[in-house]
Amino acid sequence: MKTNQFLNEHKVRFLDELFTILKIPSISAQSNHKNDMLICAKTMEQFLKEAGVKTTKIYETAGHPIVYGEHIINPNLPTILVYGHYDVQPVEPLNLWLSPPFEPTIRDGKIYARGACDDKGQVFMHIKAFEAMIQTDCLCTNVKFIIEGEEEIGSPNLGNFIVEHKKLLSSDVILISDTSMLSLENPSIDVGVRGLTYIEVEITGPNRDLHSGVYGGAVANPITILAQIIASCHDKNNKITIPGFYDDVLEMTADERALIAQIPFNLEDYKQQLDILEDWGEKGYSTIERTGSRPTLELNGIWGGYTAEGAKTVLPSKAFAKISCRLIPHQKSYDITTKLINYLKSQTPPSVKIECKVFHGGEPYITPLDSIVYKAGELAIEEVFGKKPIPVRGGGSIPICALFEKELGTKIMFLGFGLDDDGLHSPNEKFNIDNFYKGIETIPYFYKHFAALKNN
Amino acid sequence: MKTNQFLNEHKVRFLDELFTILKIPSISAQSNHKNDMLICAKTMEQFLKEAGVKTTKIYETAGHPIVYGEHIINPNLPTILVYGHYDVQPVEPLNLWLSPPFEPTIRDGKIYARGACDDKGQVFMHIKAFEAMIQTDCLCTNVKFIIEGEEEIGSPNLGNFIVEHKKLLSSDVILISDTSMLSLENPSIDVGVRGLTYIEVEITGPNRDLHSGVYGGAVANPITILAQIIASCHDKNNKITIPGFYDDVLEMTADERALIAQIPFNLEDYKQQLDILEDWGEKGYSTIERTGSRPTLELNGIWGGYTAEGAKTVLPSKAFAKISCRLIPHQKSYDITTKLINYLKSQTPPSVKIECKVFHGGEPYITPLDSIVYKAGELAIEEVFGKKPIPVRGGGSIPICALFEKELGTKIMFLGFGLDDDGLHSPNEKFNIDNFYKGIETIPYFYKHFAALKNN
Repeated sequence: MKTNQFLNEHKVRFLDELFTILKIPSISAQSNHKNDMLICAKTMEQFLKEAGVKTTKIYETAGHPIVYGEHIINPNLPTILVYGHYDVQPVEPLNLWLSPPFEPTIRDGKIYARGACDDKGQVFMHIKAFEAMIQTDCLCTNVKFIIEGEEEIGSPNLGNFIVEHKKLLSSDVILISDTSMLSLENPSIDVGVRGLTYIEVEITGPNRDLHSGVYGGAVANPITILAQIIASCHDKNNKITIPGFYDDVLEMTADERALIAQIPFNLEDYKQQLDILEDWGEKGYSTIERTGSRPTLELNGIWGGYTAEGAKTVLPSKAFAKISCRLIPHQKSYDITTKLINYLKSQTPPSVKIECKVFHGGEPYITPLDSIVYKAGELAIEEVFGKKPIPVRGGGSIPICALFEKELGTKIMFLGFGLDDDGLHSPNEKFNIDNFYKGIETIPYFYKHFAALKNN
Repeated sequence: MKTNQFLNEHKVRFLDELFTILKIPSISAQSNHKNDMLICAKTMEQFLKEAGVKTTKIYETAGHPIVYGEHIINPNLPTILVYGHYDVQPVEPLNLWLSPPFEPTIRDGKIYARGACDDKGQVFMHIKAFEAMIQTDCLCTNVKFIIEGEEEIGSPNLGNFIVEHKKLLSSDVILISDTSMLSLENPSIDVGVRGLTYIEVEITGPNRDLHSGVYGGAVANPITILAQIIASCHDKNNKITIPGFYDDVLEMTADERALIAQIPFNLEDYKQQLDILEDWGEKGYSTIERTGSRPTLELNGIWGGYTAEGAKTVLPSKAFAKISCRLIPHQKSYDITTKLINYLKSQTPPSVKIECKVFHGGEPYITPLDSIVYKAGELAIEEVFGKKPIPVRGGGSIPICALFEKELGTKIMFLGFGLDDDGLHSPNEKFNIDNFYKGIETIPYFYKHFAALKNN
C-alpha cells in the first residue's frame, strides 16, 4: 500500500510529533493540571488539522474538554469513528521513574513517558495513519475522531456527550486502540474488555483511637473485622462468595476454551517474571481464562491504625479498603455493586459500622468474532503481520464501550498495539517504537478491508 | 500526718513546678528532641536535689540518660525504689489538641499537657511527697529514684543498666506510679500489668505493582492473603487460634472472678462512651476480665496498595500489618512471639512470601495480694480515701517490671493515680489536679505502712 512508503519517509517526524504530545502533563485526576489538559486538547486538535482533518472542534464539558474531528469524503461511504483519550494516569511514585515521565526518552527501542502507550501513542498512530492515507490518496471511508480527556477518571462526562450527540457520532464502527497484543510475533486482537465495579469500604469501631492495652480484647478492632470481611469474599477454591455474583456470567463454550488453550503462554515464565512461586485463582480455570474470561474481586488498597515506623499500641477507630470487581458478559455493574455491598454489610457484625462509597463502574463488552468489524481487523493484521491474529479477551476495562454500543448501535473494534509489559499506570510506562510504526502501518488496511466488507 | 499540712501550704507551688517539667518536649521516639531529653533529665535531677535528695546522678546510656537519686538515712531501714519515666509519647495528630501539648493548661480542674499523667505528673507526686516527708521530718525509710527516658520506646537500655547496677538499685520494694485507678470514689490498685509481643508482618506477592485488570484473578493479591491470615487468628468465639497460645495462661480462680465481678462497671455506659452498639471479645469472659486477665491479639495498623483519594486499579506488590499480643502470667513474650510468627507462616500460601519483624516485648507481672507491698498500698489508700481499694488487673504493659523482679528479686507495687479517661498516648492527655494532690497525700502513708510491716 502506498501508505507504507509515506510512513517510511516520515518516521522520524512522526516520532518527533508524538514527543510534543507526550511532553504535556495531562493528568486528568489532578486539578493542578487543569490548564495542561486544555493545552493538550488544543495540541491534539492542531495535529488533527495538520493531518488534514477537514472539521475539528473542542467541546467543553463539565470536566475536561473533548476533541472532535470529522472528515467526510462521501456520505454514501462507510464511516469509521476513532475513539481515544489524551489524558494520562498520575505519575507517582516519581522516584521509581528512570527518566522524567513528561520528558520522553528512547532507550533500547522503546519510548519511555507517561501516556507513551496509554493512550497518546496509540491515538497518534490513528492521526498519522489518517495523514498517510490523505497524502497518498488512499482514504476510502469517512472518518470521525473523538478524543476525550477523562478516560483515566472513569469518563464521567462522556456518557452525556454521547447521548446528546448521537447524530454527530453516528458511524459504522468504533475503532479503539487502547489495548495490547500478545507480541509482534504472535499478533492478537482483543475481543473484549471487562466491566468494572469499584467501591471504598469504611469500617468504624470505637469513636476514637484507643490504647490497645486498656481496651484491646473488649472492643471490636475495625482492622480485624475488615480482614474477616475481606477473607469472607473468596472460598477455598478462590471462587467469589457473594450471593448471585456468578448468576449472569456467560460461561465459556468448549470451543472458546479450546481457542484460549492455543494462545502461546508459559506459566513458568510468567511466574518467574513476577517472582512468585505459585499462581493463584479460581479453581478449574487457566491463567488466561482467569484474567480475560472470568470475573474477579481484587483488593486495590487497605489502610488503618498506625502505619509509620516502629510500634504504637493503638486500637484504631477506623479501617478502610478499596475493592474492585472485573465483570464479564452478562454481568451488570450496578447489579454487582449492589450485591457486593449487600454482602459486605451482611458480613459486618453489630460491633462495628460499615459505609460503602461507590466509584465509577462500567459494563463488559465483547466484539463478536463473526462480525464484519472483527473480520476487517483480522484481515488487516494478517496482511501486515503475515499471520492470522489470535482473538483474546483482555482483562482490563474501558467502561464507555458498552454505552457506545447501546446509544449508537455501533460495534466496537479494539485494534491495540501495546504489550502487556508496557507498564500502563505504573512508573516507566513505555511503548515500543516498532509497535508504534506497526500500528500506523496496519490501520489503513483496516480501513480498506472494512470498506470492502461493508460494500459487499 | 504532718505531710498533709505541708502539702496544703505548697499546693500552688507544686503545680507550678510540675508545669516547668511539662513544658519540656521530651519525646523519646523523635531524634530531633534529643536535646530536650537531656534538658528534661537535668531538670528532673535539679528537682530531686531541691526536694532534698542527698545524692543524684545522671547516667548516660546508649540512648537517653537515666536520672538517679539516692537518700539513705539508715542502712538498717527498708529502702523504697521509686521508678518512673520522664519521656513522653509523640503528640501527633497536633490539630486535635485543644491547647498545645507542651503548654500546660488547666481546664475544669484538669491539667492538659503531654505527659501530664504519663508519667511526669505521677513521677512528680513522688518527688513532692519526698519533699514533704523531709520537710516535716516524717521520712521513715531510705529512698532511691530511677527515672528513665526510654519507657515510651520500650526501655531498650534499662535492662542492661539494671543488670550492671544491681547493688545501686537494691531495695525492698519498687514503687511505680504509671497506672490508673477506677476513680477517687472507687479507689483501686493495679495488681498486674500484661506482657507484650509486637511484630510487623510484610506480605509480598508479585515483584511490582500490577494492573488489576491485566493480572487480577491470576496472581495472589497480598492484601487479600494478609486479610485471610489475620482472619485466621481468631475463631468464631474470638479465641485466639495460634497453637499453644493459651498453654501457659494462668486461669483465674473462682475467687478472683468473684472479686472482679464486684468492680463497679456499667457496660451500657462503656458502649455509649465509645459509640459502639455491641461489645466484643473472648466468649465466656466479662469486659474487665478481657482487658485485664486474659491475653489478646490486636491489629495496630495495616496498609498496602492505593490509599489516596479516588480509584486506582492496582494489584499491589506488598501489604503490611502491625500485630501485638497482650500476655498474662505465665505466658512468655519470646515464646508467644515465636508461636505467633510460626502460625502466621503456616497460614501463608506459597503464592506469596511473608516476613516478620519483631519489636520490643515484655513479660506480664502480678503483685501478689498477700504480699507486704500490696498490704502497705492497701492500708495507705484506705487511710486517705476512707475505703479499701479494689485490686484490679490493668490491661497495659510496663515491660521492664518482670526484669526488675528477676534481676533485683524485689516485688513491685503499682500505686497509680491516673484515670482511664486521661487520654494517655492520645491528643489532650490530662491529669486531674485532685488526683495529683491525692497521690502526694497517699505516698507518705505507703512509706509509713511499708516500714511498719517490714519491721514486724
